This record gives sequence, structure tokens and C-alpha cells, in this order.
Amino acid sequence: MISIPAIKPNRPIGVFDSGIGGLTVLKELVELLPGEEMIYLGDTARVPYGVRSPETIVRYSEENVLFLMNFGVKLIVVACNTSSAIALPKLQKKFSFPILGVVEAGARAAVETSRSGRIGVLGTEATVRSGAYSKYILSLNPRARVTSVPCPLFVPLAEEGWVGDKVARLTAEHYLRDLKARTPDTVLLGCTHYPLLKGVIQEVMGKKTRLIDSAVETAQEVKELLDRTGLAREKDSGRLRFYVTDNPEKFRRVGQRFFQRDIPKVSKVSLR
Amino acid sequence: MISIPAIKPNRPIGVFDSGIGGLTVLKELVELLPGEEMIYLGDTARVPYGVRSPETIVRYSEENVLFLMNFGVKLIVVACNTSSAIALPKLQKKFSFPILGVVEAGARAAVETSRSGRIGVLGTEATVRSGAYSKYILSLNPRARVTSVPCPLFVPLAEEGWVGDKVARLTAEHYLRDLKARTPDTVLLGCTHYPLLKGVIQEVMGKKTRLIDSAVETAQEVKELLDRTGLAREKDSGRLRFYVTDNPEKFRRVGQRFFQRDIPKVSKVSLR
Repeated sequence: MISIPAIKPNRPIGVFDSGIGGLTVLKELVELLPGEEMIYLGDTARVPYGVRSPETIVRYSEENVLFLMNFGVKLIVVACNTSSAIALPKLQKKFSFPILGVVEAGARAAVETSRSGRIGVLGTEATVRSGAYSKYILSLNPRARVTSVPCPLFVPLAEEGWVGDKVARLTAEHYLRDLKARTPDTVLLGCTHYPLLKGVIQEVMGKKTRLIDSAVETAQEVKELLDRTGLAREKDSGRLRFYVTDNPEKFRRVGQRFFQRDIPKVSKVSLR
Repeated sequence: MISIPAIKPNRPIGVFDSGIGGLTVLKELVELLPGEEMIYLGDTARVPYGVRSPETIVRYSEENVLFLMNFGVKLIVVACNTSSAIALPKLQKKFSFPILGVVEAGARAAVETSRSGRIGVLGTEATVRSGAYSKYILSLNPRARVTSVPCPLFVPLAEEGWVGDKVARLTAEHYLRDLKARTPDTVLLGCTHYPLLKGVIQEVMGKKTRLIDSAVETAQEVKELLDRTGLAREKDSGRLRFYVTDNPEKFRRVGQRFFQRDIPKVSKVSLR
């Protein structure tokens, strides 16, 4: 186990994702915890994680954690569904400071929200294949019936900004047809890109379906953990720093849509 | 310059791509040159190249060449548009055996085909931004008018196998609207995934537009080069070997659609 000397309240929060998607999580974190200092790492040289093998996803995730540890972070948020689904238990075993993922937070909220126990999970191929959401949901409610649907086209649709047009609508109809027939009352957006398509997913699923945004739930869990452990910042900072492993220009350009605020400076780093 | 001892006819041909797309090129090579032995490398651990920076694309491409050199290849085909567009001149300078790319072959065929000189080029963001196709087309016909269109959604559509449905149709209409208004008589498929969408692209552009498939043109160029240099195989082999840097299972599964024949065995390798 790799431990750090001491965890102090005025240290930054580290957030990593395979690319820009995690900015939807950072956005919620900044909204809920505006005084915290945060370091965001987007592993854009190796994006997307969703198509990689489990061993590779674990290795990349560990390298991301090691990078963020250079900043003396007090807490790390794995703002990547694939990495949370596949690598989080290994990360938590290996490192001795709190590491939170989007999967637990999302799964918990879905279980709390659903009355019928029929829950839909939308995610990348790797996230769905890992079964992580199902497992976690079933551990909280063994009688839940989970239907998971991989929706690979949602990622490029979100990145292109085609979130309200006919292509998005037809794609959502295609992916959600079978799920809808099972009448879930709760659908979990199990990929950080999907909140951008909330509108069209809600439209296709119908008004009665509750959508769970893991980003919102994760931010809430981080706040609770900081309050509970006395690790909430004492002196407001609000400083944000952005690092990527490739193509900072594209990150800034496309990232604004995900972060919904300005991204001033992005530095390129090498993880090895 | 890195040179190899001697280039002999009975050595294999090396083919690399960032992932599975290059299998459309391999398919044409195998059809035209069934007796040749070929080694295919898909750098699936680092796919897609289209979103990476030029330095990174050059570095990855060099590593791919070095891997293929282990097999004593007589010739390398860069079956990746992004890599051909950005790294090929550097590769050709660095290595002393023939390296062919899909860009030159495609551009040459487009110029030979077009009567009006109005040529459309469809490709990934990186390929379009590199301007490589435009530059090459203009060097062959300075009066050509080239319109390049990045079509990022075509890649996941091809991988999902959604090549004939409404989503593909609407996406093609969206991307090709402005290009169509410029009435090109020739449109180059500047990404190895796009041949799978030939049908819908042809439909949207209209019957009069000639589509150029770089894969077909590249295979033709390889054959001419082998014949011209006396490097064509003397003893038929037809042996094919497949290597990937991650996720061999997915490569086999999705790859069949691109290769249009069986992929028996795929080995995972590390390039570093």
C-alpha cells in the first residue's frame, strides 16, 4: 500500500478522467464546493478507456493517481466511469487516502430513487461489460432488476455537440428501445459524457423516468466525506489547474461545452 | 537513417494502423496479392490517432515501424490516414526501405478521376486539419478545388455496424450538406473506416459523384511497386499474422466486419 504522510484540509482535490468527460463531474464539484482547490487530469493521450482491456485500464488509472499525488492531494475523485467500474477497488487497496468513484455514487442514488427496482444503466461497452453498476446496485437492493445498455455513439454525439437534433434523437431511440419496453422508473447515466444528452434521453424515455446523473451524486458524496472527516478546506481558494497528456488545444475547445465555464490554461504533461 | 541489411522478395509485407480500420486496406491487399505474406499491426492500445497531436502521431508511427521491422519486412504500408497524413514523410526519411501511405494513393486516384477538379475529401479531424490530402492533390493539379470535411461520427457508426440505417443517413446528410452544394465530381474516402459507409455516402452525394476508396488505390500501388522493383514474392505463401497492442478479442469481433473474412488468431504485443 502506498500511503502519504498526512492528509490536511487545505490540500487540493485531485480529479482524473480519460479525457474531457470528467469535466461534467468537475463542474458539479466546483458548484458544490467553490472554495476547494482542484487539480484535473485528463489522460487525453490514451483516451478512450472504454475500449481497453481491464489490465490496461488499471495500469493507466494507477499512473493517473501517482501523477495527482505529486500535488499532495487530500482526496481523489475518479471521474471516469470505465476507470471507476474496473480499477477503483484496486486503487483503494493500493493507496491509503480516500479515492471516490462515480459508480458507487450513481448506483446508490439510483437505488434510493427507484421505487419499482427496475433500473436502467447506460454506459460505454467496457463499463457495461464490467457489470460494476449491476453488482453494486444488487448489493444495495438484491431485488433490483438492472438492464444495462452500451451506447457507444453517445460519446461522439456529445463531443460534436449534436445533442438536440434528429441524429441524437434517432440514436437514443435505437439504443433505448428495449430498455423502454422494460419500463424502468430510474435510468442511470453511467458515462460522464451522457449528461450532455440528458434532454433527448429524457424525451425518449418519457417524463416519468427519473434520470440519475452520477456527476451530481459524486459531488454530493465528496462534500459529505469532507464534512464528515474534517477535511473540508478552512481557507477558500477556488484555484483550478488542468493537465492533459495530449492535445491541450482540443481539450480547451471541446471541454468548455462539458465544463460550462471557461478553461483558462491547460498544461501538457507526460505520465512516464 | 535506419536501414535494413537487404530487401528480399520472399519477406513479408508489414501493414499498420491505429486499430481495426486498416483491415479494409489489408482486405484489398490480400485480394490483389493473395500469395504475399503479411503482418498486420493494430495499435489498439492507443487508438484513435485522429485526436492526438502531430508529435504523438509521429512517435507512435515510428514505434509501429520498428515493431514490424522485427519480422524483416520488405515493405510497409501505413494503412492509417492520420498517420499517413502526418507521419509518412518523417518515416520515409528515417527508414531506408519502401514505406507507402494511403494518402498519396488516394490523392493520386482522385486527381486522375476528377474532370472538374472539384474534389471532396472526407476524413478524421486530424487528417483534415493536417491539410495533407489538399496539399498532395494541389501538387498534382494546382487548379483543383478541394473541400475537406471532418466526419467524426462515421467511425463509431462503422464500428457499430450502423451503416445502412436512418442514423447513418441523417449523419451523412448533416456532414455532406455543404460539400454537396459545391458539386464535386469526386469524393475521396480519407479514413479507412469510411468504405463501410460507401453506400450511404454515395446515396447522399448522388450517383454522378465518383467515390475514391484509398484502400483499393493503395493495394494497386503496392502491386505496381513490387512488380517494378522485382520484390514480388516468388513462392506463394498467403500467410497472415495479426498483432494488436490491446484487446485482441474486440479486434477479432469487430474486425471481421472490416476484413470481411475470418481472423483466426490475434496476438497481443507491447511496443515498448
